[in-house]
Amino acid sequence: MSTFIERLDAAAARNRSLLCVGLDPWRPAMPVDDIAEFNRAIIAATSDLVCAFKPQWAFYEAEGVAGLEALHATIDAVPDDVPVVLDAKRGDIGNTAVAYAHAAFETWGADALTVNPYQGRDAAQPFLDRADRGVFVLVRTSNPGSAEFQDLQVRGPETVAPFFEEVARQVVAWNEHGNVGLVVGATVPDELARVRRIAGSMPILVPGVGAQGGDLEASVRNGTDVHGRRALIAAARSVIYASKGSDFAKAARAEAERLRDAINAELKRMGKPWA
Amino acid sequence: MSTFIERLDAAAARNRSLLCVGLDPWRPAMPVDDIAEFNRAIIAATSDLVCAFKPQWAFYEAEGVAGLEALHATIDAVPDDVPVVLDAKRGDIGNTAVAYAHAAFETWGADALTVNPYQGRDAAQPFLDRADRGVFVLVRTSNPGSAEFQDLQVRGPETVAPFFEEVARQVVAWNEHGNVGLVVGATVPDELARVRRIAGSMPILVPGVGAQGGDLEASVRNGTDVHGRRALIAAARSVIYASKGSDFAKAARAEAERLRDAINAELKRMGKPWA
Repeated sequence: MSTFIERLDAAAARNRSLLCVGLDPWRPAMPVDDIAEFNRAIIAATSDLVCAFKPQWAFYEAEGVAGLEALHATIDAVPDDVPVVLDAKRGDIGNTAVAYAHAAFETWGADALTVNPYQGRDAAQPFLDRADRGVFVLVRTSNPGSAEFQDLQVRGPETVAPFFEEVARQVVAWNEHGNVGLVVGATVPDELARVRRIAGSMPILVPGVGAQGGDLEASVRNGTDVHGRRALIAAARSVIYASKGSDFAKAARAEAERLRDAINAELKRMGKPWA
Repeated sequence: MSTFIERLDAAAARNRSLLCVGLDPWRPAMPVDDIAEFNRAIIAATSDLVCAFKPQWAFYEAEGVAGLEALHATIDAVPDDVPVVLDAKRGDIGNTAVAYAHAAFETWGADALTVNPYQGRDAAQPFLDRADRGVFVLVRTSNPGSAEFQDLQVRGPETVAPFFEEVARQVVAWNEHGNVGLVVGATVPDELARVRRIAGSMPILVPGVGAQGGDLEASVRNGTDVHGRRALIAAARSVIYASKGSDFAKAARAEAERLRDAINAELKRMGKPWA
């Protein structure tokens, strides 16, 4: 079986895309009632335009067990050659983390999972040990209050650096199986550039383009590696709710295409177009 | 409707107990196959000995939607006058956090929820805003690797302090509705004492007594407030898997009683027995 990074790179190259579409069903915005039906239409309309899909666990859980059934159906509807990053920000210890890894990777069948670093490496280990799956660790998030803790100045043996940089450096050390990525919001492009310098060629998931107002071009420029790859530029609401009418899937495709092309135009300006 | 703290204080006083029993169904250790049946028996055998029950979300999720149905049945089986702390360590931003709060408090009907602080106050706000429900924020966790980030030395305007103390101070400031608590592991009694000094009379959830080897007496001494109250001393495996035989509920009751009595003996030594 291929690794998550191989599947991600293959999907990105095949679709010439760093776009990751978020599948965040939110009833007041949805043009149809059925979550699985809605997602199937979005997936069918955009799966040749993305490097990955990213369902956000909370929106399924809020619908109860029926919502989590719909998450099964959603992940099943994604073509096998497009990876699924389950955004659940898990974090817990020992056998609890083992249970979360089992749920994400076996029960729901995700290719990768987002994880919260607060409890340290031993808590992340059951996720990290899954060499065939991806683990994206939160580093610097896209919300306005993310600086409260993530930007605190931390004293090392010889240096002082923001907390999120210390987390990034540790997360790089956790990457023994080559399956780890980092999460940095599109709303903080300077911090994204600093994390990219620490992360080398590890993948970075960059949410917050679109409805949250992140800068697309800066995300591409600062988030990609030296080859102009390995960033997952994620947008959800601006794509999947592009239209509230019966043309919602067509409108989602048009917006996904627009974003992919804007990303690729920036890659071209950087001298790193797709082959 | 009463607040979470009122319900917690009432259950503690009525049962003369600071013991919180964790409901962590783990198939290899369970003496019966059905999770809801197992939990109903444990709850019936121990609900007059505890101040709260604490189901750990991961163990239900790992069983798929059937497991999360069993979580519904479990929470429904807890007597109305015993609060349920859902241990799911949620943390996400904006409308995603709103969805998580809805799931925990409405869909599953928990009285309180554990929350991860990494993303800062605005991410926690949808939980904090639920004045009738409790929010326990991770501060210093019980796992061996918790020091990796939580003990980093952080530079404030005039002082240098470990990161977890800075988190504790912020969490105290988040407590505008009087519904916030903190989580500190029983395995780190010195850190527990430091957090208690910061937290005043806010409740502290103290997991790690029992299977994780935390010190029960030190947890009571260092975790309670000036009145010898407001700590939830949590044990799961050592209680619910006290016997693998058909007498499992009776054995769970005996172990819960032993723990409650050991806690109360320490309160008496401290000169703070139940009225």
